[in-house]
Formats: sequence, structure tokens, C-alpha cells
Amino acid sequence: MCDSVIEALHEAVGEQANQATFHGYMDECGAPFLRGTIARYYQKRGVDICENEVFISSGASDELGDILDLFDTTSPALVMEPAYPAYVDANVMAGRKVIHLSSGEYNAFLPEPEDVGADIIYICSPNNPTGAVFSKKQLKKWVDYANMTGAVILFDAAYEAFIEDDSLPHSIFEIDGAKQCAIEICSLSKTAGFTGTRLGYTVIPKTLERGNMNVREMWVRNRTTKTNGVSYIIQKGAAAVFSEEGQRQIKENIDVYKSNAKVLMQVFDALGIWYSGGKNAPYIWIKCPQGMNSWEFFDYLLNEIQVVGTPGSGFGACGKGYFRFSAFGETEDTKIAAKRIYDLLKK
Amino acid sequence: MCDSVIEALHEAVGEQANQATFHGYMDECGAPFLRGTIARYYQKRGVDICENEVFISSGASDELGDILDLFDTTSPALVMEPAYPAYVDANVMAGRKVIHLSSGEYNAFLPEPEDVGADIIYICSPNNPTGAVFSKKQLKKWVDYANMTGAVILFDAAYEAFIEDDSLPHSIFEIDGAKQCAIEICSLSKTAGFTGTRLGYTVIPKTLERGNMNVREMWVRNRTTKTNGVSYIIQKGAAAVFSEEGQRQIKENIDVYKSNAKVLMQVFDALGIWYSGGKNAPYIWIKCPQGMNSWEFFDYLLNEIQVVGTPGSGFGACGKGYFRFSAFGETEDTKIAAKRIYDLLKK
Repeated sequence: MCDSVIEALHEAVGEQANQATFHGYMDECGAPFLRGTIARYYQKRGVDICENEVFISSGASDELGDILDLFDTTSPALVMEPAYPAYVDANVMAGRKVIHLSSGEYNAFLPEPEDVGADIIYICSPNNPTGAVFSKKQLKKWVDYANMTGAVILFDAAYEAFIEDDSLPHSIFEIDGAKQCAIEICSLSKTAGFTGTRLGYTVIPKTLERGNMNVREMWVRNRTTKTNGVSYIIQKGAAAVFSEEGQRQIKENIDVYKSNAKVLMQVFDALGIWYSGGKNAPYIWIKCPQGMNSWEFFDYLLNEIQVVGTPGSGFGACGKGYFRFSAFGETEDTKIAAKRIYDLLKK
Repeated sequence: MCDSVIEALHEAVGEQANQATFHGYMDECGAPFLRGTIARYYQKRGVDICENEVFISSGASDELGDILDLFDTTSPALVMEPAYPAYVDANVMAGRKVIHLSSGEYNAFLPEPEDVGADIIYICSPNNPTGAVFSKKQLKKWVDYANMTGAVILFDAAYEAFIEDDSLPHSIFEIDGAKQCAIEICSLSKTAGFTGTRLGYTVIPKTLERGNMNVREMWVRNRTTKTNGVSYIIQKGAAAVFSEEGQRQIKENIDVYKSNAKVLMQVFDALGIWYSGGKNAPYIWIKCPQGMNSWEFFDYLLNEIQVVGTPGSGFGACGKGYFRFSAFGETEDTKIAAKRIYDLLKK
């Protein structure tokens, strides 16, 4: 984690040591200082979000489970495959019907809306595992579809900080009409190293209404009943991520991951292997070479060159025959792995 | 918060600063080092709980909301009144029927089981707000009742560290049969100052089964799907609470609260005002003097002597005409408040 965050965490621990600076129960929806900081982060990028539309969570994965409280168990959920497995599991566990929407090389793993009767629509962009990113035009189709059918989009923006192409949307709220149909769920795990420190945030616009209910107000009621908020210490550390210095420092880390991704992409380009992602995402999603299936390729890499990745079939049926490489590694390790992959597959 | 905890928190922040000591995603059910530490805390008190029966949470209030995922929405919940309002709210929000069981001076606010058809039974002992504590014999009746009817007891043990009477149970698992019917939810908020730092823990015995389902296994599945665990930093701080030095230090704090409670109890004894709690709990629950209702007494204290407490009517119908004083204050402030209360009411 970057120096600014570490410094802020130490400072917050110090405050908890003294009666005069001690912080007790937190605001259930998040500390105002952090909600305001994140609202300004949106505003700087031209997205008009205000402080009380921002909710602080213990992390995106936690929030993706919790937020389902807003929907009744008869609401079908649309999951675009391949997908992060927790989308499906959380709904199945709640007894909700899951509608799987396929994608593949034919649509660059960026499917268009189909009228399938879903009340909840999961969109993850930049995508885990495919690294594919919806354009504004593509996302607009989903927003229009949701507004037409009354569905709510759960937009997982965990990887937005990896986008480098200026034309691509970081937030669904860059799209007209999204404030009437979408909830955006964000993470600091991958961008600021908060995997084990735990903090995320969620944006629910005031204008999101369903069935005569204001969704933001329902979520305030849910949070004030079901939680006492996120640790003051961690919230203070998170605020440092959004400081000028913090942003500069996390950009340095992200640049390391991006250069890792480039090293891998060069290898797949040289080998003529189809892939998506890598440029605006920390994941590179390749088609397994030589007709291998996902697990065969996993075993092949592991046994032959001791390189590890994630079999695509773990992300649903559409992931069969694909494989996910991650850019979250040490530069040297990534270079070694890339060279071994090249030497193994060029034969 | 005590020195041991602050030291451990700083140390954990330091670990997150370096690649070599960095902790990423945590075990969803809790870090093994903390689960083991808490299991040993039970074992030392003669309660045989093992590491994987302990789950780490973001706090008891969060867990009391989350744990309801285990029950379907048609399961009625029994709440003994007066009660912590979140018990009722969390169930009402989920569409669950709430059965209110009254208590009062006639049973010292410690009601006996009544056959009301509940599937979930909330027991908070030492109680918030009444400070009343169930004896082993009284608790045994509830355990037998739950085992007879198939209900699950949610035992809120947030205040167990305030018990000084050796004959009173700190844990429901001191009662024979409880491992077949109870879940215990615990907090570090009041005992170790974790209100704003956030951490709690929950014990679900392996032997708890309902409808051919193993409840502990269901909770493992829930947690692994819906969360990525509690912050490493906070878990490391929490483990320090259970060290020998940590236990000594938090006992010092608790002793301060206990002496505050004594100061208040002496005043009510001198005034001949009925109360419960204070001895084995941080709350003193008094019958409002001079026939005042809860809010009249609140206004009277505030206007006449600038002393603040919590109107009993906020804890349900049975709390009408009662008032909760808290021992969580500065010693000097408590002494001043006690003197003012005495001077005001002795007239």
C-alpha cells in the first residue's frame, strides 16, 4: 500500500489511543469526510454525484452480497458470462433465478441487451475475467434497456482505474439515463492494495426509484439497521487514496501492473494468440492454444514451466477453452513468466 | 483503546506497507490466528469451542443483521421486550413476523419461555437496556424450549465481560444442550473500545442442525460467497485484546465503568428507586420516579440538571416509564451527574 495510506492509517490508530481524539460508532453509511472526498473524485471527472449518494462499504465483494437485500427473492438476475462467480452464487443462495447471457469472441465478450425478463442486471466493466470494456455507446444500450424494462443495473467498477483510453467510461453515470437505473459498486482492492485492508464504496443516485420506492432511501434504512459502519481507521486510510499525493502514488503502482500487462500482451501478439483485455484492465483473457481446454492448459503451464493462471471454465460455460492471466505480479516474475510462455508455445 | 491493541494495530499497518509482510484477501470466516485465539478464550473458561466454530465479523450489530440470511422470511422471531431496537427492525425489514414477549418488574425483566411458535429467539444477557442477567437455571429453560420446538437462539453476549458474579453464565454454551440450538454473537465494542474500530465474533457449534442442514456449514457457505473477510489490521488489533496483557488492560477499563455503575447504584439505593442491572452489566435500568413517563423524566433531567440518559420507551412498550443510565462515562462526570440526580430527586 502506498505511503500516503500507510501514514493516514498510523495517524488514525494514534487517534484511537486517546480519549480526546477517539472515534466511536461511525455513521452507518460512511464517514462524511470520506463520502465527500469520493463525491469530489466523481465531480472532478465531470460526474455530478453528491456526498449522500456515496455509501462506504467493507469492500465490493461484501457489498455485492449485501446490496441484494434491496431486491425480493422473486427478482431474476441477469449475469453476463463469463463472470465473477460470486454474482451467481449470491443469487442462488438467496433462491433467486439467474439468467445467463452468453458472450464470446463473436461479440468481443461485450454482449448486447436481450429481452430476458431480468430485474437485476450485472455489468462488470472493465470485466473480470475478460478484461473487456464497454464503450459509452454499448453501455447506453444497456441503460436504455434497463430504463425501458424497469430493471436495475449493478455496475461493478472495481477496475475503473485501469482504463487508459479516454473515450471509455470509468463510471456508468457518464451515460445519460444511468442515474435512473444504476447502482455503481467500487473497490480500492486492486487500485490501492486494499484486498486485505478492506474498503469499497457504492453510489446510489437519489433519482433511482423502483416500484414507488426510492432505492437510495431504502439503502439508508438498510444500513442504519444492519451495520454500525466501517472502521474509522480504515476509512481514514481510504481517504488518503484520493489525496493528490495518494493518487500520484497509486498511479505508480497501476503503471507497474500496466507494464506487466504489456509484457504479456507482446508475447500473445508474437504467438498470434487471440486475447481480450490487458490495455484497459489488469486481466488478459486468452483463447487456449492448440485446442486445449482450460484445465489442460492450466496443467500444461504448471507442469512444463511452473506458471500459474486461472482456468476460464471457472467463470461459467462461456469461459471454457479460455484462460485468465493477471497483471498483479512483480515485474521480474512477470517477465520470467512471459519468456517461459513464449518459449513453450512458439514451438 | 488499550496500549496492547494500539501497538498491534500500528504493527499491522506497518506490515501492510511492505511487500514481504503484506496481507491480501483474508479468510472469509476470519483469520486463523484470531479464530484460534478466541477459541482458547472460551476453552480457558471451560467451554469447549474449536477454532472453526468461531467466525470473525465486522461487529455484533452487523452480524445480527447478516446472520438472518440463515433463516427464511416466513420464520417468526421472538423478541423479549424491552429490547435493542435493531432486533425488531432487521426482521421487519426482511418481512419476518416479530413476536414480542413482555417482561417487567414482576419477573425482574427475565421472562420465561412461552409457547408462541417462534423459529428465532433473541436473548441478550447481560441485557441492553435492563442490565438483567439470566442465571444458568433460567437459561437452561430457554435452551430446553428451543430444543423442544426446533427454534434457534441468537444469544447476544456483547456485555459478558461485565459479569462479576461467578455463578452467572458468560456464554450460552455453558448450558447443557445449547450447542444443539444456539448461535452466540459477541462484540469487542464495549469491553475493548472497538465501537469505531469495528470487530465482533460469532460462535456456531458444529452440532447445530436444523431441517437436515448443518447451520455452521451454511454460514461458511454464506460468508465465502458474501464477504472477503474483515480487515487484517483490525483482526490483528483484536487478537491483542485476548493476550494476557490485553486482558489486564481492558479489565482496568471495565473496572472504571463498574465503579461508575456503583456510584449511580448508590444514589438509586439511597433514593429508594427500583432498578435492575449495574452489578453485572454496564446499564442501570430504573423505574422513573414520581410517576413520570420516560420522556418526561428525560426532559426533567436535561432541563433541571443537564444530565442525559435514554428513555426506556425507545426499547419497546414494556420500557414505558423506565429509563436507562449508562456506566460508559468519565469517572468525574459520572460522580457529578450522580450528585445532581440525588440532589434533584431527594426533595
